[in-house]
Amino acid sequence: MDTDLVAEKTEQAAEVLAERNIDCWLTFCRETTEISEPNLPFLLGFDVVWPTAIVVSKTGRSAVVLGRHDAPNASELPHDVIPYDESLGEPLLELLREEDPDEIAVNYSRDDNTADGLTHGMFLRLRDILDGSDYEESLTSAEEVVSAVRGVKSPTERERVEQAVATTQELLGDVRERWDPDWMEADVADWLHARMDERDLGSAWSWDYCPTVHAGGESDIGHTLPGDRTLPAGEVLHVDFGVKQDGYSADMQRLWYRPSDEWPDPPADLDAAFADVRAAIEAGRERIEPGVPGHEVDTAARETLTDRGWPEYDHAFGHQVGRNAHDGGTLLGPRWDRYGTAPQGEIRAGEIYTVELGVETEWGYLGQEEMVAVTADGTEWLTDPQEELWRIGEETNES
Amino acid sequence: MDTDLVAEKTEQAAEVLAERNIDCWLTFCRETTEISEPNLPFLLGFDVVWPTAIVVSKTGRSAVVLGRHDAPNASELPHDVIPYDESLGEPLLELLREEDPDEIAVNYSRDDNTADGLTHGMFLRLRDILDGSDYEESLTSAEEVVSAVRGVKSPTERERVEQAVATTQELLGDVRERWDPDWMEADVADWLHARMDERDLGSAWSWDYCPTVHAGGESDIGHTLPGDRTLPAGEVLHVDFGVKQDGYSADMQRLWYRPSDEWPDPPADLDAAFADVRAAIEAGRERIEPGVPGHEVDTAARETLTDRGWPEYDHAFGHQVGRNAHDGGTLLGPRWDRYGTAPQGEIRAGEIYTVELGVETEWGYLGQEEMVAVTADGTEWLTDPQEELWRIGEETNES
Repeated sequence: MDTDLVAEKTEQAAEVLAERNIDCWLTFCRETTEISEPNLPFLLGFDVVWPTAIVVSKTGRSAVVLGRHDAPNASELPHDVIPYDESLGEPLLELLREEDPDEIAVNYSRDDNTADGLTHGMFLRLRDILDGSDYEESLTSAEEVVSAVRGVKSPTERERVEQAVATTQELLGDVRERWDPDWMEADVADWLHARMDERDLGSAWSWDYCPTVHAGGESDIGHTLPGDRTLPAGEVLHVDFGVKQDGYSADMQRLWYRPSDEWPDPPADLDAAFADVRAAIEAGRERIEPGVPGHEVDTAARETLTDRGWPEYDHAFGHQVGRNAHDGGTLLGPRWDRYGTAPQGEIRAGEIYTVELGVETEWGYLGQEEMVAVTADGTEWLTDPQEELWRIGEETNES
Repeated sequence: MDTDLVAEKTEQAAEVLAERNIDCWLTFCRETTEISEPNLPFLLGFDVVWPTAIVVSKTGRSAVVLGRHDAPNASELPHDVIPYDESLGEPLLELLREEDPDEIAVNYSRDDNTADGLTHGMFLRLRDILDGSDYEESLTSAEEVVSAVRGVKSPTERERVEQAVATTQELLGDVRERWDPDWMEADVADWLHARMDERDLGSAWSWDYCPTVHAGGESDIGHTLPGDRTLPAGEVLHVDFGVKQDGYSADMQRLWYRPSDEWPDPPADLDAAFADVRAAIEAGRERIEPGVPGHEVDTAARETLTDRGWPEYDHAFGHQVGRNAHDGGTLLGPRWDRYGTAPQGEIRAGEIYTVELGVETEWGYLGQEEMVAVTADGTEWLTDPQEELWRIGEETNES
């Protein structure tokens, strides 16, 4: 069990509550192998069966009310453990009476999925419990709490993301070594999946779509399954990939050019397109610093790309990475309806973001994605950024 | 992708809606690798990133509104595919106007977690979309829809559960073969986990707690991690285990007696306790038939056990099994607050249940759990029921 991680994040949560003067944060969930509560892994560290409430207070106290069968697992945690047999309602109310909060922040959010782990049925159940108590009007969204607690990585979390990045880079390097011109997109994916199975690694997003592989200019772009296409000589292999290791993820995109007889080096137009992608990513990255709203970063990258004559990319320039490849909170994205208020969030020191975009070319999709950590006045790279089109495949016969 | 399964279940859902005269069922979710929507695997068959709405109508029409990047994955499904770029709201409203429902059932439920995949934030978002339309008052709970669609297994689902049962029984048989008196509880778990990894099998519940292993009378009972206890001769090994295979689960408990020099056969009191457990399970099982409320089954088992002088078990007698080991819907449980209305649900033909209970003895926890499918007038076994205490271990030295 992740006892240290739970201790670090619980302490961080209490600090966030104290800073913002929010009395307490309540995470309420059940049967979490069926419907996961995004904050549970660092607030409790194990899945629960019966309805469970974790309360962190701005005073620094934390407690968990949980079914008696689940209770033995909580004994090493920094929380007061309050087991129940038949009903969670009364012990939870008693705990709240001890804390007597004006405001109880709970996990719902229109825009931030990581802050939206409270299901509507559980919300109604919680309201039933509070009905008639002093707290029936006290529920508010924990959006800002979750965003600060989940976004700003603790030392253990930072180490784990760095480990996931190192492993992902290692596996991508191995792909290049082992790649064969007969490999279809699906072979790249199968080879990575076999390495991940051997090492007990998870995928940063849906297994079947991680990696995403695009071989050359005729491949369909999007969240599509790796297909039966091989990489023609003179075109580009694109891989979007990240492992999940010890619960934390990486997310990066890499590009390799396969030399042909006619074009042992990439054509000048291809090099120029890659340079445009790099320049737009760099323009965005340079805007990242604490206090800047996410959408400004997206605009800097987006305008650099369109100024260079390319169409806009149809996604956000960057998202946070942590437990999940899409880790919620502030988004470095345009203010489109589907992103809600996430692009208006302000960047914080200690958060980890991707910076990514791409253009479609006749040689293939040129998508690049790096990862950065936010420092006091800018960023540092977590990935070793790809600064040129790498080569893949020794043979130069046209296929 | 599970195209056949999605087709079967979508057709079943339309039939359930028509029978109950509910106009349409709307499943609304996003980023489902972070927060899973329990019905998505058989309504869509893949995870989504952007907000996604799946609408099944009583007329038999089904449609999915989803982000353009996710859309290519849906092309083989029986659904109309409606991709969007920036916002789901308008295309969803247009779809609803075509169907013009009086009632839109959505996935929230106080008591049934499998019918509670709509998060509170997504519920608010949906209300925002419907605000000012003809449908702003149309949202209702899809509890009864989900319970009927998820509970009654389609042919593919039934096959998969049977496969998971067969694999689980095979692995439990192998445990008995390979078991060594030096094995700690954790060694049993490690051995099973290694076999599951080799065969790419998941666990029916949380990996670390599946199997649960109790070695002898001194082992702690509950949802605890397998520990460093070995099995003393003359005591009982208890294993609660199920694999998840092709998305469907098994859940069973098995018991083995380790002979000692003094007691090469189980003592008479141990045999009698096992017989009491069996009798209570059988009394419950005999009450199972379509139309019976779940709590009546629990009462039959519970009273048989207490009539024989044992304390009540502190859980439900049985739960449904399907995708998850705890599959929601009707529960064969007591009418305790923590189970909400689930024990009042009526049993349906085609559902699959566990029947389980146990007693604590000086030889160890005697827990037994079998699985049954509900027929038109009773049940059939899915497991090969354990009718006697099996033996484990050749040597008879006291440890």
